[in-house]
Amino acid sequence: MIIIMKASSTEPQIDAVEVHLRSLGLQPHTSRGTQRTVIGAIGDKREIDLERVEALDGVERVVRVMKPYKFVSRESHERDSVIDVKGIPIGGKTIQIIGGPCSVETPEQMEAAAAGVAAAGCRLMRGGAFKPRTSPYAFQGKGVEGLKMFREAAGRHGLPIVTELMDVRMLDTFLEQKVDVIQIGTRNMQNFDLLKEVGRSTHTPVILKRGLSATISEWLMAAEYIAAGGNHNIIFCERGVRTYEDAYRNMLDVTAVPMLKRETHLPVLIDPSHAGGKAWMVPALSRAAIAAGADGLLVEMHPNPPEAWSDADQALNPQELTSLMVELRGIAQVLGRNI
Amino acid sequence: MIIIMKASSTEPQIDAVEVHLRSLGLQPHTSRGTQRTVIGAIGDKREIDLERVEALDGVERVVRVMKPYKFVSRESHERDSVIDVKGIPIGGKTIQIIGGPCSVETPEQMEAAAAGVAAAGCRLMRGGAFKPRTSPYAFQGKGVEGLKMFREAAGRHGLPIVTELMDVRMLDTFLEQKVDVIQIGTRNMQNFDLLKEVGRSTHTPVILKRGLSATISEWLMAAEYIAAGGNHNIIFCERGVRTYEDAYRNMLDVTAVPMLKRETHLPVLIDPSHAGGKAWMVPALSRAAIAAGADGLLVEMHPNPPEAWSDADQALNPQELTSLMVELRGIAQVLGRNI
Amino acid sequence: MIIIMKASSTEPQIDAVEVHLRSLGLQPHTSRGTQRTVIGAIGDKREIDLERVEALDGVERVVRVMKPYKFVSRESHERDSVIDVKGIPIGGKTIQIIGGPCSVETPEQMEAAAAGVAAAGCRLMRGGAFKPRTSPYAFQGKGVEGLKMFREAAGRHGLPIVTELMDVRMLDTFLEQKVDVIQIGTRNMQNFDLLKEVGRSTHTPVILKRGLSATISEWLMAAEYIAAGGNHNIIFCERGVRTYEDAYRNMLDVTAVPMLKRETHLPVLIDPSHAGGKAWMVPALSRAAIAAGADGLLVEMHPNPPEAWSDADQALNPQELTSLMVELRGIAQVLGRNI
Amino acid sequence: MIIIMKASSTEPQIDAVEVHLRSLGLQPHTSRGTQRTVIGAIGDKREIDLERVEALDGVERVVRVMKPYKFVSRESHERDSVIDVKGIPIGGKTIQIIGGPCSVETPEQMEAAAAGVAAAGCRLMRGGAFKPRTSPYAFQGKGVEGLKMFREAAGRHGLPIVTELMDVRMLDTFLEQKVDVIQIGTRNMQNFDLLKEVGRSTHTPVILKRGLSATISEWLMAAEYIAAGGNHNIIFCERGVRTYEDAYRNMLDVTAVPMLKRETHLPVLIDPSHAGGKAWMVPALSRAAIAAGADGLLVEMHPNPPEAWSDADQALNPQELTSLMVELRGIAQVLGRNI
Repeated sequence: MIIIMKASSTEPQIDAVEVHLRSLGLQPHTSRGTQRTVIGAIGDKREIDLERVEALDGVERVVRVMKPYKFVSRESHERDSVIDVKGIPIGGKTIQIIGGPCSVETPEQMEAAAAGVAAAGCRLMRGGAFKPRTSPYAFQGKGVEGLKMFREAAGRHGLPIVTELMDVRMLDTFLEQKVDVIQIGTRNMQNFDLLKEVGRSTHTPVILKRGLSATISEWLMAAEYIAAGGNHNIIFCERGVRTYEDAYRNMLDVTAVPMLKRETHLPVLIDPSHAGGKAWMVPALSRAAIAAGADGLLVEMHPNPPEAWSDADQALNPQELTSLMVELRGIAQVLGRNI
Repeated sequence: MIIIMKASSTEPQIDAVEVHLRSLGLQPHTSRGTQRTVIGAIGDKREIDLERVEALDGVERVVRVMKPYKFVSRESHERDSVIDVKGIPIGGKTIQIIGGPCSVETPEQMEAAAAGVAAAGCRLMRGGAFKPRTSPYAFQGKGVEGLKMFREAAGRHGLPIVTELMDVRMLDTFLEQKVDVIQIGTRNMQNFDLLKEVGRSTHTPVILKRGLSATISEWLMAAEYIAAGGNHNIIFCERGVRTYEDAYRNMLDVTAVPMLKRETHLPVLIDPSHAGGKAWMVPALSRAAIAAGADGLLVEMHPNPPEAWSDADQALNPQELTSLMVELRGIAQVLGRNI
Repeated sequence: MIIIMKASSTEPQIDAVEVHLRSLGLQPHTSRGTQRTVIGAIGDKREIDLERVEALDGVERVVRVMKPYKFVSRESHERDSVIDVKGIPIGGKTIQIIGGPCSVETPEQMEAAAAGVAAAGCRLMRGGAFKPRTSPYAFQGKGVEGLKMFREAAGRHGLPIVTELMDVRMLDTFLEQKVDVIQIGTRNMQNFDLLKEVGRSTHTPVILKRGLSATISEWLMAAEYIAAGGNHNIIFCERGVRTYEDAYRNMLDVTAVPMLKRETHLPVLIDPSHAGGKAWMVPALSRAAIAAGADGLLVEMHPNPPEAWSDADQALNPQELTSLMVELRGIAQVLGRNI
Repeated sequence: MIIIMKASSTEPQIDAVEVHLRSLGLQPHTSRGTQRTVIGAIGDKREIDLERVEALDGVERVVRVMKPYKFVSRESHERDSVIDVKGIPIGGKTIQIIGGPCSVETPEQMEAAAAGVAAAGCRLMRGGAFKPRTSPYAFQGKGVEGLKMFREAAGRHGLPIVTELMDVRMLDTFLEQKVDVIQIGTRNMQNFDLLKEVGRSTHTPVILKRGLSATISEWLMAAEYIAAGGNHNIIFCERGVRTYEDAYRNMLDVTAVPMLKRETHLPVLIDPSHAGGKAWMVPALSRAAIAAGADGLLVEMHPNPPEAWSDADQALNPQELTSLMVELRGIAQVLGRNI
């Protein structure tokens, strides 16, 4: 922690900051510059509240030196982590394309979807039984019944399942239904009680989607909540952020890929479907994601998109997914990876 | 709903849209312009999914004509609603300044805070027993014990209490502890299961804070989730939104006040403390909020700010709150209101 | 300047940074912490390029200690500056409401506008002869002819004029036409050649509008370009910034008022008309601006808004301006100021 | 144009809108729905000012049906345009990587840079003689002398040059110096007088960089300003936009590539160097850009980055550029293109 004093700060104010730092177990190291006095605090700890120091008289601002995250930080674990999902690796050399519909609708739709996902060469399947919808009047998902339909259809094709947990009270049901990967959605990235619970009650892998306007640092800290509880099987998923641009639903933040790869050892996926919000954008965004170094995609595919009960306009059809896989394999190869 | 067809759309595509609209129980009304065909759908319903129509071939975009919200809309209820909290009105002619510390810390701190709040002339008190913190290593609140401390201190000074509910599993405890106003925080504005629960299990007034980058429309829809459950005692609270500007923590969106006053009949508060993030900004932002027409403030006051366990740098001290009240009363008077 | 080294930085890298700092005439002051080494550079100068230091091996990031602005900074000039426009003060105790139409249209419209502005009690008048329009097919302003119309109409009512300069080649014409206050528009806030020219070729007061997504710091630096040329008669004007919110045209950043008042000695105006983009929002935003401490407003008034050639939907009519003045006087009085 | 009336609008208000539309030469087409009346205006023209219609009583909002741009629109020109720069095509099947330093510094630096650019296999060279800098105290570029140095060094290696024009008064000099491609920078994207001048006074190809927070639509309209003057040799360049994220300088908007490819027939480049602001991010962003379908890159390369006079931390060195070219060629091949 570095404390930058105001140009107008006085000696007693500087003394008071030094006393306060010592009371926190830190060693102050004061430099009197031509324009400003700057105090470094040696022995810095992650737990110290910067705001209490900022509130002291004469302090202009406080700069954190240490990263606020620990378990998820690459400083704590240099090599890439690979998360194992029933023998399928997420992270590492192999790229995983996780396909499936936005919502679980009917047994027939799920069977057709699972067949399409498997035929395209994907090794995991996504689908939502509980749907976070902006409007209370929109379809809210098939619930537990949907979870079972999903489980059965995916099982017939040997596909582990990825599905969203919205309500902490449903965690036990998810574990009973043997959900293979729990997805924490955008709107719940800072639902801290939910994060704590998937951290301490299970080791099931968790895909943590980025909040709609979460910074990289907040996102890493949200993962730290899970890791601090004991579950280190965390996978990040960027899905577009909110900006001023209204020509597309969200803006895919492709820079998040190299940035996360530098800051954390955990795998990073991209969801190109929610980012752009239109099926015709998905191939370009998917290629960009893999080219940028993502470890995989979470991509919407529906057996018959115009009939989808939600997000009809953003799902690929099975043929489009199959064609996309060909392009992505080409790009993976350029990067020395495989799909 | 209005469907704007692409310039290149064909007659069979236009026919197919008309057939689809009729299948939804809507009457198509087609205008062939010089550049584009436009189809109006008469008999529009709130529940219809625009995306399925957008996914039809030849459709460029779909424009919603109806407001997606119902109970919270001013169209459904022309006059301003006044929410009653133990005889204290929120909304209407009287402006309520709700003061108190960020966190409940100790019985002594809460007693001093309650005394300061009452002495300044506030009629309700705020304080947090469960704290949503970016870092899992930061102070997480005193929990149920804190709720009791708060209840007792505020009770001695006749102040109803406002406090944040983060975890749906704590709702029963909040009701047992007779929390007077339940606050739903920024990070939970779209925690839909929590919204549904405070909508259907209680009639306790709810302060719904705006999400960090929520649009006005999403915010109104979040309130609609509560209202649809049966609880119409909803109070909006703007607390600054996320923008590109890094000179302050958030940007207070003062335009939200006249906009919400136009769109909804429900009361609107401002939280100037979380908006700017610095105590020295609070008086200017508070005056602006009241001048813009807000029905009140949620403002942080701590008996001894530099010793606060959270947000030390943004709380007013008791004297500052008292001085602020004087200015706010002057502004309220100019607007024909009182504090 | 403070240099934070990476956790993995080596002694030779630290040495190289120290050598580099000395070569810039700075004295390095190195603290070796438990987790990081931090190097303070004493004798810091405004001109030094942080990026060259950031590019050195082993450097994680560089934190600027000094403010990058000089002439416009309150550190360099503690008391509020008052800019004199033909005897009318901008800044200080008196608040100036500058009214007038978006565009100069006809002599009759300008006469009616000037009469309305004067009748409402405003002391300066605004109007645009050169219009920055998003579309090349929209009305581009009446040009020099419009400037003359404006000059004459305002002159008859004793009102100094404020008008926008878009093209550096028109500066001489502006000076010949004795424009009293030159406005630099949002889109030109970082048109550095234009800023330099109004800095070195004239002492005419300049209203510098904030760029659509300019930070406070960039805005102050843009003003510094003008001041560095010799023209210190600079007035800031906040006019709404670009955010994700689409319910209004821009988001008025009312927090900019207290922030600028702290950082600079120069006056600060608000343009509530361009911020919200709708006439019905103007009274609420105007009151908020004055309550937050602004030194005045730049507000659109048209003798007959629905007939305006540009921005028809955001201009007040003369009666609305007159009513607004009454409310604003009340708020000014609460703050110990006058209008 | 479609006019959506308020729920509370009256028959006389609807009549008045119809009369107004007819006065503009448009044919009103009115649908009375169950909740709202909607009026379509047939015979819509690009030039009509929506705001005057929005200002009419009883109007809730106006939706534009036609695209506001004409020459740059793909509707007006279906096939991809290829811009010829001295025999080198921009757009079409070949991808162009345009390398070079941020600033022209010395003849030696420019010779080394040109040699490096040519050796890496690039066919055009970039470099700045006039530099837009946030601070008036930072290096402002070598000016006309720099232009000559650039011309000579690039000429020796057969590389056409791309350089930024900031001041409209310098256009003649640029034409005399035979600048091959004029760059309009981010801060000048809406400097309309500059756009008009490069539109009407020359047919030299123009790279139009996206404004820091420009929407896709505003960017297309800025290009329309150039095209409307007669110069149709326009190349778009995305260079990152401003968002709330502070972990990188700007956020590369890769979605802009497929979106522009759909809306316009003109070529689209990406500047990965200014987007991320750090050299280590450039390879990942460059690969993403090409994979998304960009027609080329504008990438910073300096013979000795840590010694660069500006943007030292974001330039590749010659070896890094050469390695990057290899990866990009691989990706281009997957897409059926070549570099």
